Amino acid sequence: MLKLYYAAHTCALASHIVLEEAGATYETVRLDLQAGEQRSAAYLAINPKGRVPTLLAEGGALTETPALLVFIAQRHPGADLAPFDDAFAFARVQAFNSYLCSTVHVAHAHRMRGSRWADEPAAIAAMQRKVPQAVGDCFDLIERGMLRGPWVMGERYTICDAYLFTLAQWLEADGVDPARLPRVCDHRRRMAERPAVQRAIAAELGT
Amino acid sequence: MLKLYYAAHTCALASHIVLEEAGATYETVRLDLQAGEQRSAAYLAINPKGRVPTLLAEGGALTETPALLVFIAQRHPGADLAPFDDAFAFARVQAFNSYLCSTVHVAHAHRMRGSRWADEPAAIAAMQRKVPQAVGDCFDLIERGMLRGPWVMGERYTICDAYLFTLAQWLEADGVDPARLPRVCDHRRRMAERPAVQRAIAAELGT
Repeated sequence: MLKLYYAAHTCALASHIVLEEAGATYETVRLDLQAGEQRSAAYLAINPKGRVPTLLAEGGALTETPALLVFIAQRHPGADLAPFDDAFAFARVQAFNSYLCSTVHVAHAHRMRGSRWADEPAAIAAMQRKVPQAVGDCFDLIERGMLRGPWVMGERYTICDAYLFTLAQWLEADGVDPARLPRVCDHRRRMAERPAVQRAIAAELGT
Repeated sequence: MLKLYYAAHTCALASHIVLEEAGATYETVRLDLQAGEQRSAAYLAINPKGRVPTLLAEGGALTETPALLVFIAQRHPGADLAPFDDAFAFARVQAFNSYLCSTVHVAHAHRMRGSRWADEPAAIAAMQRKVPQAVGDCFDLIERGMLRGPWVMGERYTICDAYLFTLAQWLEADGVDPARLPRVCDHRRRMAERPAVQRAIAAELGT
């Protein structure tokens, strides 16, 4: 059985939602990042990077959200969560998810995780000041064209939707005015109405 | 026919190598980043992110290295560059590439592209000072276990090898002493001996 290691309010929510959308059989393990559980010896033995999410499968531990989303979708073909039959369409899914992990999430991370990239408090504060612009620029691109509508890839709901929804949770805290992103906000509202999304969020907040 | 938009000394080299390994029919367009060609109206119409690489296929433009590498491998199944028949093995390939794009490349980018995340020159200088440690920490993880040997995924050469080789080009400039990374350096040496790698590098340097 699959086991998802996650922490609340992190990008692990995307994998959690996709597990629910897929109808997967899985269990979860919640980590307390404030308490440093991601750096415990037990967890580092599973994921030496000390981050969430980790998905434990029969073959071993898997990490990195774009990899997890595709893996879960591939294991549950009946849920039809990614276009595996079309290399070009699949590459567009991959490109979207890769942009989220390498650019959008990174822009966001400079608000809380600046110490990854600088030591001086003044530099970390300078990074924090730029987060609204950097994250806002990313979401402007998504708003203007990457989000095709009604779902990220158009008519077909995919793993990209769970990932976008997860990162769009952080807009207000990142200092981005959602009013400038009507299409992203409409997507966020429709995602929040999906039973799978509601179950994943309830599980993360209720544990 | 595929068309790769690239710039020299960027992560586009990974896609260039994989095109060569795959025996693909393709052409290239070289961009001069110093001259700002990635921000020309013509290029932004192809890739609104204003970055390289972009791969133009019959269906349209594709971006993001992890997406391109899988797409090229999937179009050329005879080259056997990714384990498409095994969801878990494929997820490991994806996890490795995702780590490179979202963590390793990002750590490196704080040396030359700090203005993405802060405006003040002192903050940008502080980021630059931390690059040797941040990039070094990433490569220590790769050295200690992610690079299974002889290739990233073990006995089988995959798209991961081209991507690792590309980012390992930057170690010295990032202030990381390669002597602490004997397995990464051995991989880099063996990669440099491959004809496909030599053709891609020659094309990028010779144009």
